Amino acid sequence: MSSTGPLVCTSIAQVREQIESRVARGARSVGLLPTMGALHHGHVQLARRARDENDLAVVSVFVNPLQFGPGEDFESYPRQLEQDLALLAEVGVDLVFAPDVQEMYPDGVPVVSVTSGAAGGVLEGATRPGHFDGALTVVNKLFTIMAPGPGTPFRAYFGEKDAQQLLLMQRMARDFDHRVEIRPVPIVRSERGLALSSRNQYLSEEQAEHALVLHSTLRALAAGELTLEQARQRVDAEPEVSLDYLETVDPRTLEFVAPEPGVLALVAAWVGPTRLIDNMRI
Amino acid sequence: MSSTGPLVCTSIAQVREQIESRVARGARSVGLLPTMGALHHGHVQLARRARDENDLAVVSVFVNPLQFGPGEDFESYPRQLEQDLALLAEVGVDLVFAPDVQEMYPDGVPVVSVTSGAAGGVLEGATRPGHFDGALTVVNKLFTIMAPGPGTPFRAYFGEKDAQQLLLMQRMARDFDHRVEIRPVPIVRSERGLALSSRNQYLSEEQAEHALVLHSTLRALAAGELTLEQARQRVDAEPEVSLDYLETVDPRTLEFVAPEPGVLALVAAWVGPTRLIDNMRI
Repeated sequence: MSSTGPLVCTSIAQVREQIESRVARGARSVGLLPTMGALHHGHVQLARRARDENDLAVVSVFVNPLQFGPGEDFESYPRQLEQDLALLAEVGVDLVFAPDVQEMYPDGVPVVSVTSGAAGGVLEGATRPGHFDGALTVVNKLFTIMAPGPGTPFRAYFGEKDAQQLLLMQRMARDFDHRVEIRPVPIVRSERGLALSSRNQYLSEEQAEHALVLHSTLRALAAGELTLEQARQRVDAEPEVSLDYLETVDPRTLEFVAPEPGVLALVAAWVGPTRLIDNMRI
Repeated sequence: MSSTGPLVCTSIAQVREQIESRVARGARSVGLLPTMGALHHGHVQLARRARDENDLAVVSVFVNPLQFGPGEDFESYPRQLEQDLALLAEVGVDLVFAPDVQEMYPDGVPVVSVTSGAAGGVLEGATRPGHFDGALTVVNKLFTIMAPGPGTPFRAYFGEKDAQQLLLMQRMARDFDHRVEIRPVPIVRSERGLALSSRNQYLSEEQAEHALVLHSTLRALAAGELTLEQARQRVDAEPEVSLDYLETVDPRTLEFVAPEPGVLALVAAWVGPTRLIDNMRI
C-alpha cells in the first residue's frame, strides 16, 4: 500500500510534465488505465496490471460527455474522486489524471473527432449511437497526451469483457499509428463461469443461475457443438433470459462472419431487468 | 544546394528510426511538409520554410487514396518521385517519407478514422464529400508517425491558400492534442493580386485579368465597402467568371457567420473552365 497515494493532475500540461520528468528520472515504461471513475473491483484488477507491468502507472478519471447519448445518464453518472483515489492509493498507482470537461474540450464539442463508422454502430453500438466514437475520441486524446515518446514503452489496459470497445481501441492504435501497446485484461469469471460485473449484484440467486447460460452457450458454440442459430435459441429459451444479440465477428473489422477459429463470439442478454454481456474467442 | 539529396524512407519504422537517431544526434526541431508529390513552386516555398525553421526537414510524398472521391483522379494523379526528389534536393530537405498504400493502410480502408463532420462538408467539402476526412486521416497518421516526442519542437506547414484544409488541420491539432505546431504559409500573389496557383497556367491573358476580381472583391469585403451579398454579385458579374461560393466563416469552427473582424472570407469561382479559390482574413 502506498503511504501517500497518487499525485493528482488536473491539467494536460501538468500530467505531461509529470510523465516527462519521471521518464527523465528513470521510469522506463508507462502504463495507462483510462476510466470514468466510480471504480470497482474490475478497475482495480486492471490498475494492478498497469502498476505491475510498468515503472509509471497512470489512471485517468474523466466522465466523458461525448460517449453518453441523449437520455443517458451523463449528469447523474457517479463522481466519487476521493473514494477512487483511496482505492488507487491501495493499488499503488503513481499518477491520476482527473481533468474537467473544460480542460479536455476547451472549445466545446470537438470539430474534428474520431469515428469508427459501421464498426461502432453494431452490437453494443446499435443501442448506443455515438457511444464508441465518443470513447475513441477521448482515448485518442489520452494517448496523445500521455505518450512518453520514442524509446519508452507505453501500454494501455482494457478489459476483454467490453470486447467491442477493446477491438476498436486496438484498431485505433493500429489505424492511427499510436505508439501504444493495447494490453487486454482477461474476463474474470465466477467458479461456474459467470463473467464478473458490477451489475451481477442486481441478480437474484435464481437469475444468477439462469445467467450461466451465456457462458455455457459461448463454450458450446466455440466447441462447434451448436450453430449460431442454435446458440441464439438456447440463450433465449433459458427462463428469465431474453437475448439481445449473439453474433460472431471478425476481430479486425467487427464484420459479422460465420463462426470459425479466430473469430469472436459476443452475446448480450437481459436477465430479468439486468443487461449482461459476455464474449469468447472461437 | 545539397550534394546528396534527401534520404528516402519508404517504411514507417524507417522514418521513425531516422527521426529518432537524428534527434539523438542533436537535431533540436523537426519540420514536416505533407504532400501528395507532383511538387511545384508552391510546395518549394513551403519546403523552404520547413528547412529554414527546423534542424530536420521532412517532406512526405504520398498519394492518399482516402481523399479522392469516386470519379476523382486517384489512379491518374501524377506520380513523379524522381523529379520531386531533385527539387527537394535543391531545397536541402533532409528526409523524404514516401510510403506506398500498403504501408500506410496495411489493413485496407481504416476502420477507425478521422472526421470533421459538418465543417468538412461545406465550401470545398460540399463538392468533394469525404475529401477532408481523408486528408485529416492521413495527416493524423503522419503526425503520430513523425512526432519526435516531448522536448523537441515539431512543426507542420500548410499553405493559407487551401484555407479550409489549414483550418481543419489546426483544429485537429488542437482537438487531438497533437504535439505539433501548425505553421501557416501566406498566399503568394502576383503584383496585381492574383493568388499564385498551378492552375493559373490554364488562364488566357484575358481570363487572368478577370480573375483579379476575386482578390479585389475580398479586399473590398474586408474593408467593409461591400456586404457579403454585394461581394457575391460583384464576382458573379465579372465577365467569364462564375461564382461557386463566397462565404465568411468562424475560423475556429468553419460555421458561416456575418463578415466581422477576425472571420475568414473564402471564395471559389470558375474563370472560364478553371476553378480558382482565394481567401482573406477580415
